[in-house]
Amino acid sequence: MSVSVRHAVLGAISTLALVAGLTPSAQAQDARTIAAAEAVRDAAMADNIALDYVTQLTTRFGPRPAGSPSETAASEWAADYLREHGFKNVRIQEFPLVGWERGEESAAIVGANAQRLVVAALGHSPGTPAGGIEGEVVRFTSLEAFQAVPDGSLAGKIAYVDAGQLVPMQSGAGYGPLSRIRGAGPGVAGQKGALAFIMRSAGSDEHRMPHTGTTRYVNGVVPVPAFSLSAPDADQLSRLVGYGEPVRVRLSSTARTFETTSRNVIGDLPGRTRPEEVIVLGSHMDSWDLGTGAIDDGAGGAITIAAARAIADQGRTARTLRVILYGSEEVAQPTDTGNGGGAYLRSLSAEDIANHVFTGESDFGADRVHTLQLPVGAQTGPFAEAANRVLYPIGVLRSSVPETSGGADIGPIVRAGVPVFGLQQDGLRYFDLHHTADDTLDKIDPEQLSQNVAAWAGLLWLVADSDVDFRAMAPATPAP
Amino acid sequence: MSVSVRHAVLGAISTLALVAGLTPSAQAQDARTIAAAEAVRDAAMADNIALDYVTQLTTRFGPRPAGSPSETAASEWAADYLREHGFKNVRIQEFPLVGWERGEESAAIVGANAQRLVVAALGHSPGTPAGGIEGEVVRFTSLEAFQAVPDGSLAGKIAYVDAGQLVPMQSGAGYGPLSRIRGAGPGVAGQKGALAFIMRSAGSDEHRMPHTGTTRYVNGVVPVPAFSLSAPDADQLSRLVGYGEPVRVRLSSTARTFETTSRNVIGDLPGRTRPEEVIVLGSHMDSWDLGTGAIDDGAGGAITIAAARAIADQGRTARTLRVILYGSEEVAQPTDTGNGGGAYLRSLSAEDIANHVFTGESDFGADRVHTLQLPVGAQTGPFAEAANRVLYPIGVLRSSVPETSGGADIGPIVRAGVPVFGLQQDGLRYFDLHHTADDTLDKIDPEQLSQNVAAWAGLLWLVADSDVDFRAMAPATPAP
Repeated sequence: MSVSVRHAVLGAISTLALVAGLTPSAQAQDARTIAAAEAVRDAAMADNIALDYVTQLTTRFGPRPAGSPSETAASEWAADYLREHGFKNVRIQEFPLVGWERGEESAAIVGANAQRLVVAALGHSPGTPAGGIEGEVVRFTSLEAFQAVPDGSLAGKIAYVDAGQLVPMQSGAGYGPLSRIRGAGPGVAGQKGALAFIMRSAGSDEHRMPHTGTTRYVNGVVPVPAFSLSAPDADQLSRLVGYGEPVRVRLSSTARTFETTSRNVIGDLPGRTRPEEVIVLGSHMDSWDLGTGAIDDGAGGAITIAAARAIADQGRTARTLRVILYGSEEVAQPTDTGNGGGAYLRSLSAEDIANHVFTGESDFGADRVHTLQLPVGAQTGPFAEAANRVLYPIGVLRSSVPETSGGADIGPIVRAGVPVFGLQQDGLRYFDLHHTADDTLDKIDPEQLSQNVAAWAGLLWLVADSDVDFRAMAPATPAP
Repeated sequence: MSVSVRHAVLGAISTLALVAGLTPSAQAQDARTIAAAEAVRDAAMADNIALDYVTQLTTRFGPRPAGSPSETAASEWAADYLREHGFKNVRIQEFPLVGWERGEESAAIVGANAQRLVVAALGHSPGTPAGGIEGEVVRFTSLEAFQAVPDGSLAGKIAYVDAGQLVPMQSGAGYGPLSRIRGAGPGVAGQKGALAFIMRSAGSDEHRMPHTGTTRYVNGVVPVPAFSLSAPDADQLSRLVGYGEPVRVRLSSTARTFETTSRNVIGDLPGRTRPEEVIVLGSHMDSWDLGTGAIDDGAGGAITIAAARAIADQGRTARTLRVILYGSEEVAQPTDTGNGGGAYLRSLSAEDIANHVFTGESDFGADRVHTLQLPVGAQTGPFAEAANRVLYPIGVLRSSVPETSGGADIGPIVRAGVPVFGLQQDGLRYFDLHHTADDTLDKIDPEQLSQNVAAWAGLLWLVADSDVDFRAMAPATPAP
């Protein structure tokens, strides 16, 4: 929608609120609002339902692949959980997608150095022919080197990219270069004529636990069977190739895709005086099949549900808080319509979108929040000051860099113009666990989980119980 | 052999040495001997072949289960490695054993909370019937509670013992209580009528990596299929049981036993003046099937070979250094004859045994040595002082407690009277990795590995290039 329409809609709402004799506008920086935000923050730090939610979710349902019976059951349970915890208008929003199932898989070096390898097929990889695939390994140390060989030159071979371990960064920035290999690799392998594609998994750990993750379609399918190799197995394979003798690998997988549906679970804590104005707290319900989706992203649901609940325990806010547990974040195909964020956006009218005043996503584990990023234009000024006052005492710094995307789930509404914030978390150990069998409840530190809840609750109170307007703070978009 | 016979034999040898006009006795505490030991220690710390050996061994052969083609191939390779590095009289000593093969295995919670569990069958566990075993789980929090229920009372059930995580200790003492459960559990399960036995694996980590290990035969077989559950899976199963609803588990395994042979690889660095007097440096070649046996016990072979080689690089010692890479330490059945230590002992005459002057075993990973334990009677006196002088500078303390056992490989010769030392290693992280798929090369810290080599080389020089007699230091055994 255009900026002018958006402002007209908001103007109408403000006028309506005054005419209806509701509470006059409250500023986020009012002393009373800040004091209430601090109280919410401290109460959430001391006691919240996050650990209860993520414990029950991961224990009762285990892995929750998009479109699986387990995701469906977990969604029904989560809807009940929201109702039991005072959320209103709890609903489940169903949408179609192409699901993917791992089946059974195995890999081994054959011949003189025969030994098993620990692999995981990449999401949406096709299975191998029955009996498997066998070929000599050709190793590349970068995607660029792999792309540079002539088309068709790897006929009968297995292409292997080992570009080293993921560089651990607090920001998670080390993931980018490796997820690019994961996305493009099978397509390049197809182009070069290879039988299959294997890569050192996109992770920072040294455990026999491959990191899976979705790869990219080319003309509607993933071109060749594609696997991720655990770091110690990648070390091993690269050393053997380095010894200079030919290394043959056998790969087998019964992976398959299928038509299915996923679902978003949505629950509201309706606003007191501005119920049409909605703040969306996002995370995703689906998980990879290898672990139980505790840090990715049971924790996000736990943090957002607990933060909303902590706010409601303090009092009803002016605006509506909406928690959405999105379906199908991990294996979304088709990319544009197969994920929960897109399905949610399609359910909104232009007026609904204009009434979405703020959104954020929790999808980076349960380790502590260290930095707040506010929407474009809000880096300085009274709201930023108030937020800093509430968050700095629990170890959250302010950033001069605006948040602009928010993540895969809320991406669609953010691209439609909803102001977005980021409560950035410590990602130093996230990629030790992400997309592996080791993504389990025990990896969540309850104290850091509570700090997340407190940061979300404190920040959101300032927005939910005020009339702060981030759209108005954004610099005018230059005319095209 | 009796104490009196042993002393008579030793007396004869000493007399012989003098008559033959060999080098007069050298004391371990001589300044020249200590200086040479210090030089060997420092040279080994700076440069040794340990990392090369364990890298090649684990990379080329991967897992090396006792009696497997991989163990055989690795033994042949290791014999060549010893020859290439100057060892003499390199030989392979074959012996029979009952081997065990894991085959394929799986486990899952079935019903309302359906999800896979990550398990590993215990060594020598029988397979399940085709199609698997299914039953309700009955949980016990201790072996004692399990043993206390009436015989036959678990008919149709799966017995589950979750006695908590292994207590991490530098000494590794936390392993005892849990390995007892592993040994006794399947027998108790059979007695109680259970279909199968599962236990939280004997480990200190929180990874989806079960710790395997051998269990105990009852009347010649393991009574029921027996599995180890990874810690996060044990957490999960125990939480679900704690929710109070019945939990059913399905288990499947194609494990089997078979007649096979294993082998000891033996190589000597013959002594200059007292070649009959042998110092045995022990470790084991076989490994569990899940990892590549880097810390258990590729490292032990690496440390002992590299220490012997470092000593030889400094000069030929008076006594013979013998490196033995024992076969079948992990799955030895029958207990008395199916392991390499027993096979080696059976190959020795009484005179041979009397000529074994000192032995030690390296089978606790590659983390640093922190304490020296000397044989009974040697805790004080000139040798202990000399050893302390050589080892304290690299962080090794002296102990007032004697070493008396030495481990499974050298246990048979120690029980036959060979004086034993212990260079105790830091075991705090050993049981994170022990008997799991994660026992891989990357877990070895090269610097700590070298400190081990230096400690072994420094200590052994004092014994190998002197006439120190630990048997003479032992208090006289009282007459029976």
